[in-house]
Amino acid sequence: MAQPQVKALIFDTFGTLVDYRTTIIREGAAWNQKKGWTVDWAKFADEWRGQYRPNMDKVMRGELPWMNIDQLHRMALEELLPKYGINDLSEAEKTELNTIWHRLLPWGDTVMGLTYLGMRYTIAPLSNGNVALLSNMAKHARLPWDLILSAELAKAYKPDPRVYQTAVNLLGLQPEQVMMVAAHQEDLLGAQKVGLKTAFILRPLEFGWSAIPDLTPDPSFDVVANDIVDLARQLDCC
Amino acid sequence: MAQPQVKALIFDTFGTLVDYRTTIIREGAAWNQKKGWTVDWAKFADEWRGQYRPNMDKVMRGELPWMNIDQLHRMALEELLPKYGINDLSEAEKTELNTIWHRLLPWGDTVMGLTYLGMRYTIAPLSNGNVALLSNMAKHARLPWDLILSAELAKAYKPDPRVYQTAVNLLGLQPEQVMMVAAHQEDLLGAQKVGLKTAFILRPLEFGWSAIPDLTPDPSFDVVANDIVDLARQLDCC
Repeated sequence: MAQPQVKALIFDTFGTLVDYRTTIIREGAAWNQKKGWTVDWAKFADEWRGQYRPNMDKVMRGELPWMNIDQLHRMALEELLPKYGINDLSEAEKTELNTIWHRLLPWGDTVMGLTYLGMRYTIAPLSNGNVALLSNMAKHARLPWDLILSAELAKAYKPDPRVYQTAVNLLGLQPEQVMMVAAHQEDLLGAQKVGLKTAFILRPLEFGWSAIPDLTPDPSFDVVANDIVDLARQLDCC
Repeated sequence: MAQPQVKALIFDTFGTLVDYRTTIIREGAAWNQKKGWTVDWAKFADEWRGQYRPNMDKVMRGELPWMNIDQLHRMALEELLPKYGINDLSEAEKTELNTIWHRLLPWGDTVMGLTYLGMRYTIAPLSNGNVALLSNMAKHARLPWDLILSAELAKAYKPDPRVYQTAVNLLGLQPEQVMMVAAHQEDLLGAQKVGLKTAFILRPLEFGWSAIPDLTPDPSFDVVANDIVDLARQLDCC
C-alpha cells in the first residue's frame, strides 16, 4: 500500500537497522583474544545497552546536563569496565571501545532496503545517537542516507515530541508527509503524537535468540513490515 | 600536500559546488517558452542572488526574524516578480520557481571530486542554504555527502563563527581536524577565525564570463585548487 502523501522516511537505528548486540559480541571476542580477557560480551552488551534509556531519562529530567550519546555511552562504559575486571585500558583504547557504536553492523536487509526506499523517498536516520556517531556509522556500513537527522539537533531524546518536530521542520515538510520507521513501539507512538505516519519493523532478534520480545503491533501503525526490504515492497519501491 | 590531521571537509555550495547562475538561466528559458515571457534570466539570477547577502545581514542584525534561505529566497522573489512583469503565477508555480535552488546543477568536476574526497574524508556541505534545500540538492545532483550540515543548525549565517563551531561540534572533531572548502574568501577567513583549515577553490565563472572576479588568494589559505578534482589530487585522494 503506497503512502502517496509521504515524502520522507526517517529511521530509528539501534536495533531497527543495525545489530548492536552481535557487533559488540564480535568486536569483544577480538578484545578478549588480544588482551587475554574472558569477558562475557553478550552480558556486557546487554548491560551497556541497559543503561541507555535510564541515562537518557536522567538527561531529560535534568538530573544530568545535556550529554550526547557518545558521552552517555562513555559514562556507562566507565562504570562497566571495573565491574568486568578491566582496569588496563589506555584513553585511546577506551575511545576505540566506546566508538564501537559508530561501527555497528547492519541487519542483512538494511542496505538493500534503504537503497530501494531512497529511489522514491528522502531517507534519513532519526536516532538518539549523535550526528557524528550516525555519520560515521553510515560511512562504515554504507547506509545510503540523504541526510543525517538526530535527537542531538533538538537537544532532547525520543520519544520527546521536540525530536520529531525538529526533524519535520528541517525536512521542510508537514508531519503527515514524514513516516517514522522503528522496531520500537514507544518511538512510533511518540512520532504519532506529532502527526507522523508510522511503520513498525519486526526485529525479533534485537536482544538475542533467548529473549524474543512481544512483537504484537499496536493497531494504529500505518505499516507493519518484516524487515526493510519488505517495507520497500509494501511502499511500492521494489 | 596531504593534511594528516584533517578528518572532515565541509563545503560551501552556491558557487563553489553548484552553478546557480547557469541553472536559473536554463530553467528560466523553459519558463519563458511555456509562458510566453521575455524575461532576461541572467539579469534575474544576478538580482535574485544579489539580495542574498543583504537579506542574511538583516537577519543577523535582527532587522528580520530568523528566516531560512528558502524563506529569504521567496521574500526576494516576491519583490522581483512584479519588477519583471510577472503577475500571473499560482502559489504552486511560485514554489516551483523558488525551489530552483534545490535543483542547482553541479560544476562538471564536483561529483567526481567529492567522490574521491569521500574515500578518505567525511564530507558534508556547510552552506547558508537550509537543510531541506541541501538534501534535495544532493539527491537531485547526486552529491555523495556523508551528512548535511547547514547554517540553519546554528540559526546564524556564515561568516558568523557559531556556524563553523556548530559544524565542528556536530562532527565530534576539533577545529583543526576540519577543512572549510569555498570559492569565497570571506567564508574561509570566517572559518579560519574558529581554527579550521581552509581550501580556496577558483571559480572564475560564478558570475558569468563577463564578470570574472579577482581570484588572488589570501596567502593564509592552506590549499588553493583549480576545482574539486584538483583538491582531491592535492589531498592525495586520486
